[in-house]
Amino acid sequence: MEHFSLPALSRVVISGGTHGNEMTGVYVVREMAKNKVDKIGSASRTTVLSNPEAVKVCRRYIDKDLNRCFTDALLSATLTPSSPYEIKRAHELNALFGPKGSPQAVDILCDIHNTTANMGMCFIFYRFDWITLHIFKYIQSKASFGPVRAIQFDTPLPEAYSLEAVAKHGFTLEVGPQPTGVIRADIYNMVMEALDLIMDWLEKFNSGRTFEGGEVEAFCKTNALDYPRDPTTDDITAAVHPQLQDNDFKLLRPGDPIFQSFNGETVKYEGEEAYPFFVNECAYYEKKIAFQLARKISISLPSISVTKD
Amino acid sequence: MEHFSLPALSRVVISGGTHGNEMTGVYVVREMAKNKVDKIGSASRTTVLSNPEAVKVCRRYIDKDLNRCFTDALLSATLTPSSPYEIKRAHELNALFGPKGSPQAVDILCDIHNTTANMGMCFIFYRFDWITLHIFKYIQSKASFGPVRAIQFDTPLPEAYSLEAVAKHGFTLEVGPQPTGVIRADIYNMVMEALDLIMDWLEKFNSGRTFEGGEVEAFCKTNALDYPRDPTTDDITAAVHPQLQDNDFKLLRPGDPIFQSFNGETVKYEGEEAYPFFVNECAYYEKKIAFQLARKISISLPSISVTKD
Repeated sequence: MEHFSLPALSRVVISGGTHGNEMTGVYVVREMAKNKVDKIGSASRTTVLSNPEAVKVCRRYIDKDLNRCFTDALLSATLTPSSPYEIKRAHELNALFGPKGSPQAVDILCDIHNTTANMGMCFIFYRFDWITLHIFKYIQSKASFGPVRAIQFDTPLPEAYSLEAVAKHGFTLEVGPQPTGVIRADIYNMVMEALDLIMDWLEKFNSGRTFEGGEVEAFCKTNALDYPRDPTTDDITAAVHPQLQDNDFKLLRPGDPIFQSFNGETVKYEGEEAYPFFVNECAYYEKKIAFQLARKISISLPSISVTKD
Repeated sequence: MEHFSLPALSRVVISGGTHGNEMTGVYVVREMAKNKVDKIGSASRTTVLSNPEAVKVCRRYIDKDLNRCFTDALLSATLTPSSPYEIKRAHELNALFGPKGSPQAVDILCDIHNTTANMGMCFIFYRFDWITLHIFKYIQSKASFGPVRAIQFDTPLPEAYSLEAVAKHGFTLEVGPQPTGVIRADIYNMVMEALDLIMDWLEKFNSGRTFEGGEVEAFCKTNALDYPRDPTTDDITAAVHPQLQDNDFKLLRPGDPIFQSFNGETVKYEGEEAYPFFVNECAYYEKKIAFQLARKISISLPSISVTKD
């Protein structure tokens, strides 16, 4: 089996409130900032409230979804006084924790999100990044709660649009179900435990521990389905079917019910076998996504350890 | 046992979207309006989207919570061009379906709401109104889903602030848990079934059926508790405790945990035995309510039938 020696990881950022109405990250970041523990073992940990203006009004965003603003194109655009608030904020965050793709970028950025979908805890990442995947494997094996899953969005880094793309090893911690604007203690506790486990892992890695390789399972996003809509008004004409609702990551087969129209008719799935996720996520109505689909993949992790001086 | 003869009920209003991000009522009203069945048996049924501007932007309200605008004081205030949108809209709705407390008011107004709390279906009403309570008893006995509960807010009619107060017999149909901005098919189906049962009941009542009296159980609101807050920032410092979360209507005893602070401490309940409801309702953070409390009461219903010509 392959082995990689990788540089020590010294700068960690925990971010919340990238979407101002996803409350777990907001309260986790506020609590951590209160304690002012900046140095944990060999790593420094910084917290940031990514979209403070949206948090103030408890909305996803002010002008534009911040978590779609970190493409190379948007980060290199010239700012003007009339640029959307979130574009300006993305430039600030990129200057603080990036620049994206540069040697100056922070080592780890963990961005905390909530979903109204029944997804449990998910690691979402763009690339087959060995550090992210080893952290995921560690949390999956140690967490007192379950399930913990990995989701890969197969997007090239220049087009990667979310905050974590600015870090060398960035990932989203997506946890649900939790309504927007609501904080649930059970989900807060899960995230706090995961963040402790991340710092544990980092300390062990930086101290020279070898992490053995192995197979991990991940869900690789393939496509997304919109709700049936009225061609004139664009209003949705159906809800997610009760048999699909809350059944994220359960295999969907051709012929399975996926929507129930408001007049009572059932719409059946016509695609290939796939795993649905983000089923009935609140914020995706405007993005025209009823749920996303993935295929299951197996990833062979190499063993890793820190580069000796 | 007492018996009352009451006038026939001919005008029914089904309203939704009083809060623009509570989606069940929005889609129920749109679906019913599409079918244009105005006359069902002896009664006419009208639908209304109460706060169309808030529905457009998927927010609870534009300027002010519409469902707090139907007090006698606010309905008799003089409108100016700068009056809040919802005050103007409350005057319109009162002219259409009231005036509140007048003989011209509609007979029945059922206002559909959602909560993020695990409350199932609840009838919320102000007065011991025999029509409302008989409809409640009928639905409780016939519904294919459960539980169905009754909640009384002991507010004198002049101060009654919600839309249903304009009708002769008004009530709120509160259904949850459903996140704001999300439509769940299971909850949509429950509400559609309840609305069909209401029309069934009305048809039977108007046709001369005698509805037998009996005891019904209701929850009578006593008080409300706020979250622990930081005295300087006013931010909440605790979430609803996992042992209370989702346990609406389960008896709360002195010493039971009610909050978990963000640094992990448990806050215990110090009041008298009571039944919590609206536990962790999204919209009540701004109203400084973590949950409400009720005592359980038993109401003796008289038998009723329609007045013969």
